Amino acid sequence: MRLAGFKGAIYPVNTRYSDVHGIPAYPDIASVEGDVDLAIVAVPARIVPETLEACANKGVTSAFVFSAGFAKTGAKGQAAKARITTTARERGIRVLGPNCIGLYNADIVFFGTFTATFEDRFPQPGPIGLVSQSGAYGSHLSLLAAQRGLGVRYWVTTGNESDINVPEVIDWFAGCPDVSVIVACSEGLTNTSTLLRALGKARARGKPVIFMKVGTTEVGAEAVRSHTASLAGSDEVCDAVLRQFGVYRAHSSEEMLDVAYAAGFGVFPRSRCVALMTISGGVGVQMADAAVKAGLDVAPMTDEAQATLKRHLPFGASRNPIDITAQAFNDVGLVSSNLQLILDDGRYNSVIAFFSYVASSKSMVEPIFSALRDAKRQHPDCVLVLSIIGPTEIVRRYEEAGCPVFEDPTRAVRAVSALAYLRASFDRPAPVHPETSELNPPLPAGPFSEHGAGQILVGAGLPMAEMTLVTTAEHAVEAAATVGFPVAMKVCSSDVMHKTEIGGVALDVGDTDGVRTTFHRLAQTGRAGTDGGFEGILLGRMAPPGVDMVVGVSRDPSFGPMLMVGFGGTLVEVLSDVSFRLPPIDAEEAKRMIGELRGFPILAGTRGASPYDVNAMATALVELSTFAACYGGDLESAEINPLRVLPDGQGVVGLDAVVITRTR
Amino acid sequence: MRLAGFKGAIYPVNTRYSDVHGIPAYPDIASVEGDVDLAIVAVPARIVPETLEACANKGVTSAFVFSAGFAKTGAKGQAAKARITTTARERGIRVLGPNCIGLYNADIVFFGTFTATFEDRFPQPGPIGLVSQSGAYGSHLSLLAAQRGLGVRYWVTTGNESDINVPEVIDWFAGCPDVSVIVACSEGLTNTSTLLRALGKARARGKPVIFMKVGTTEVGAEAVRSHTASLAGSDEVCDAVLRQFGVYRAHSSEEMLDVAYAAGFGVFPRSRCVALMTISGGVGVQMADAAVKAGLDVAPMTDEAQATLKRHLPFGASRNPIDITAQAFNDVGLVSSNLQLILDDGRYNSVIAFFSYVASSKSMVEPIFSALRDAKRQHPDCVLVLSIIGPTEIVRRYEEAGCPVFEDPTRAVRAVSALAYLRASFDRPAPVHPETSELNPPLPAGPFSEHGAGQILVGAGLPMAEMTLVTTAEHAVEAAATVGFPVAMKVCSSDVMHKTEIGGVALDVGDTDGVRTTFHRLAQTGRAGTDGGFEGILLGRMAPPGVDMVVGVSRDPSFGPMLMVGFGGTLVEVLSDVSFRLPPIDAEEAKRMIGELRGFPILAGTRGASPYDVNAMATALVELSTFAACYGGDLESAEINPLRVLPDGQGVVGLDAVVITRTR
Repeated sequence: MRLAGFKGAIYPVNTRYSDVHGIPAYPDIASVEGDVDLAIVAVPARIVPETLEACANKGVTSAFVFSAGFAKTGAKGQAAKARITTTARERGIRVLGPNCIGLYNADIVFFGTFTATFEDRFPQPGPIGLVSQSGAYGSHLSLLAAQRGLGVRYWVTTGNESDINVPEVIDWFAGCPDVSVIVACSEGLTNTSTLLRALGKARARGKPVIFMKVGTTEVGAEAVRSHTASLAGSDEVCDAVLRQFGVYRAHSSEEMLDVAYAAGFGVFPRSRCVALMTISGGVGVQMADAAVKAGLDVAPMTDEAQATLKRHLPFGASRNPIDITAQAFNDVGLVSSNLQLILDDGRYNSVIAFFSYVASSKSMVEPIFSALRDAKRQHPDCVLVLSIIGPTEIVRRYEEAGCPVFEDPTRAVRAVSALAYLRASFDRPAPVHPETSELNPPLPAGPFSEHGAGQILVGAGLPMAEMTLVTTAEHAVEAAATVGFPVAMKVCSSDVMHKTEIGGVALDVGDTDGVRTTFHRLAQTGRAGTDGGFEGILLGRMAPPGVDMVVGVSRDPSFGPMLMVGFGGTLVEVLSDVSFRLPPIDAEEAKRMIGELRGFPILAGTRGASPYDVNAMATALVELSTFAACYGGDLESAEINPLRVLPDGQGVVGLDAVVITRTR
Repeated sequence: MRLAGFKGAIYPVNTRYSDVHGIPAYPDIASVEGDVDLAIVAVPARIVPETLEACANKGVTSAFVFSAGFAKTGAKGQAAKARITTTARERGIRVLGPNCIGLYNADIVFFGTFTATFEDRFPQPGPIGLVSQSGAYGSHLSLLAAQRGLGVRYWVTTGNESDINVPEVIDWFAGCPDVSVIVACSEGLTNTSTLLRALGKARARGKPVIFMKVGTTEVGAEAVRSHTASLAGSDEVCDAVLRQFGVYRAHSSEEMLDVAYAAGFGVFPRSRCVALMTISGGVGVQMADAAVKAGLDVAPMTDEAQATLKRHLPFGASRNPIDITAQAFNDVGLVSSNLQLILDDGRYNSVIAFFSYVASSKSMVEPIFSALRDAKRQHPDCVLVLSIIGPTEIVRRYEEAGCPVFEDPTRAVRAVSALAYLRASFDRPAPVHPETSELNPPLPAGPFSEHGAGQILVGAGLPMAEMTLVTTAEHAVEAAATVGFPVAMKVCSSDVMHKTEIGGVALDVGDTDGVRTTFHRLAQTGRAGTDGGFEGILLGRMAPPGVDMVVGVSRDPSFGPMLMVGFGGTLVEVLSDVSFRLPPIDAEEAKRMIGELRGFPILAGTRGASPYDVNAMATALVELSTFAACYGGDLESAEINPLRVLPDGQGVVGLDAVVITRTR
């Protein structure tokens, strides 16, 4: 801090030395003359609580604890960590750590950290607030950011999180006027209600949150458990919630910093429509492949613009990618005139231009630079990303003109896709913050049979198939005559979960005799195969054909009740083609949720087939999500399997249901 | 070339100037005194053919044509390109280009290229041979390689490929003693038989081929068509063939150079088992996630090794990832002792160690360096990859000790996965080079009914369901009595492709009356619904239940007949879960092919279910592949759909087939 020029007072406290690096040291914090804003605590773990007490007595309101040996080392460590938490709460002192590597504010050169990454240079301030649970990884990122000229204004590591946690820091960044990009790294998602509030706040202020949550695989999750002693929720659920709240989830350091870098320019494209400009046909194709895979829209230019372009450049490609070829060397005016054509076309909210070494070669840098600067001035809302290889000082010039620069064209494409994703999330209405209403009467006590579960779900507005519970053969025959043939008949019991496996289901029963015979057979199966919960036989008219889906609610250890949708059938289970949301959701979110399924084309109507009723499916998901949000506290799980989706306009119908309650 | 110190003679030929850059120029090539090895032709497109003639007259046997304006500019350009090809063939001159940017040999500083990427430095020789169809992209790669200190010995761009093409250059690299890593970039796959021969040669010599073929998406393929005027085959087919021949397919420049760099160290791990060593628990998890996603095996250390490790380092994680924590700062001996433990464990063929900035900090570099160097000396066959941030000179030291270095831990993981992939492909028996045998009698002329197609496939050794073709009701009843009830009955005609849609299929016919009634109904449908090709009714016993697959052969524009396998059903079609191979294949390859299907767990037995007969399935694929290889020239397509896979040990049975022939 002294090397960097920190202007505040620094008071070493040490029991053995009278000065530290030439600064007079105090034997204890009580002796310090003057007010102390923050205490940096690097003492043996066992005396951390008393040290914090001493800090509190001195009137210190915040501390960072470097000392290690807490969460990872069994019950004793956990107890010591709990003592820190208690001291923090009771004495009104906010604590970072223990076992964290500190924090910095690059703006006022306050480097309150033990990281060893400042040997070459100090971090420069910029638009980024970075929080990392891991100190070593946070240091790694800080160094990488500094090396590529990426400014991190605030840097916080949280370590074992006895008090301050990652979600709280995100919340603080969200409210901080000089942070416009938030980068967060965490090994698990804890304090989820703080997290969701913080994410909502960031989104509302148009601040992108770029999140890396490790532990996406089984082995990874196991390593998180052993490393942080915390239980990880399902990674798919975490992924869904982050997406729902508009967070960009990164899977590597490179991706995280690339997106933070691009987001720092503050321009987010209104659409996913991108123009690709290139001096190499091959790279144009490579970018087009990457863009399409990233879900960007590589729409062709208008015919008119293409014709104009062809007049300028008969050998080039004018559709999109737009290949201005090596001819740009001979006639650099082509860069400007083609860029103009692309931007005037009006449909493109992003342009990615591959110039490789050409944009930094001595003869080309000036004309290309002014073409880009002028284009950017005329179209400030258009994202203009460059793929260039060149020395830092030339790259900085392009950056100052407002253009993010990437060496690798594929990384440029990924950055544009991320910016468009973030813009779409800013433009969406705020996700509803889920709160389990305490006003709702509790669910009746379970266990429920299919009939009981169905009644609960019908009460929640879900379109379950009409089924009559019959207890005699004559009653069954009567009911069948009323609903019409053919009918389905099923054993109904509160303790049969796998009706099919015990032979408790009969489909397509076609006549009165069939109903009678089937009733006796099923009743016998029901009585024999279930353990006292047998209620009778459910009978209903066979449902019309459609696509069988599964919708449900299940509890995640981090987020509580989660809404789920997927296709029915074993193969789809193996391919795990399911999609999650935190309830409640509205119809638009429900449609996005359905649209995320890889098998979605089946519902939309594939290869000339007619579409199915996606709107009714979305409505059912909304109803189920409201049910989950209201009764989440009482609910272990709820599932409609199958939920049959009928042809478009004909609705959906739930054919079987399970509801399992829990004690709050 | 003069700046770089090229030692050969350079003869400018120019009609207007008597010297070029101070070197005396000749008015024409005939006047040049002395032998010429290579002519660099940069003249207007229209006089290229006569210029090549003049070169040939002078005895020049190779030329590189820079001139552009050929393939991309319509019929006239194509004709001009064809003239170059003719001249090359007739006059025995090998031609690179036209419209290419040249070639270099960094070893003898022969830089016969117009690339503008040498402003800063000349490329350094190294183990890599790089060939790129695109000149601009080839230049981009050459510059990136030079910047990261990656040596490219030979660099060739092929442009419009009037004579020399990418496959031929790969073939040359494969035979070249001073090239050990081959990097190739191409927009389409042409000259496939040369390509396959070249890939086989490289593989046999243990030289990795790292290939980027752009045009993987529809938009990309469209851009290739407009750029190179060539028709692209299916990208999935291309992907399958490259994998079958052990090629590593890269999807970005970064990935390509990362893998080439790591492969240049010449050590390829014997297994996919990797140890992850880290100074940050969070990064350990991140690497574990990336490794599992890449299909690496992050196996835990033995209990004994873990116990030893725990004694050294009670706060660390000892399973795998192995977290030696920031404690490594205080006790650097931990690096060496833990590395020893990991390597002595014996199960790991690769170690990835994340040291971030620590390995290059002043106090740590020497002890870490010697620990790694010693480990590498003792275990030269183990791949030891580092994730380090540091200045170039420190990185070079680690590299000289035999350790590839990556800043990003995720990229380090990807590189190890690539090396293991390459080793597995070197270790496999050579793929059989497919040749359509001209000795086989041609297939009978089509069109074929299901019955005819089935007979052909039975002849090829495929286990088709036994079906009897019956033409009278009595004959049907008799056949049913022989095979046993229930039976399946189907209209058989050479011109009904969609039997189900016209109501031409009856399943589960349970008794004699049913057979008689069904016969009459189907016969009527068959006569009415087909156009003269009606042959009768096929009758067979209902097949036992199983998993329905599709296997087939179809023609790819680049590779000819390709073998395909996938799951049956619409949903799976939408998810395009299929796998391809170039026939013929052996049983091992067939099993790999089946194993690539995402739905494979269904066949293997998922969630306690019994497995299906994968061996019989593999045998059927081998038979079909042999059939395709023998009759490929006559075959438009062949498909068995469904091929029902029965429970393990019970075989497979083809339930329907289509064979379509073509004129050779």
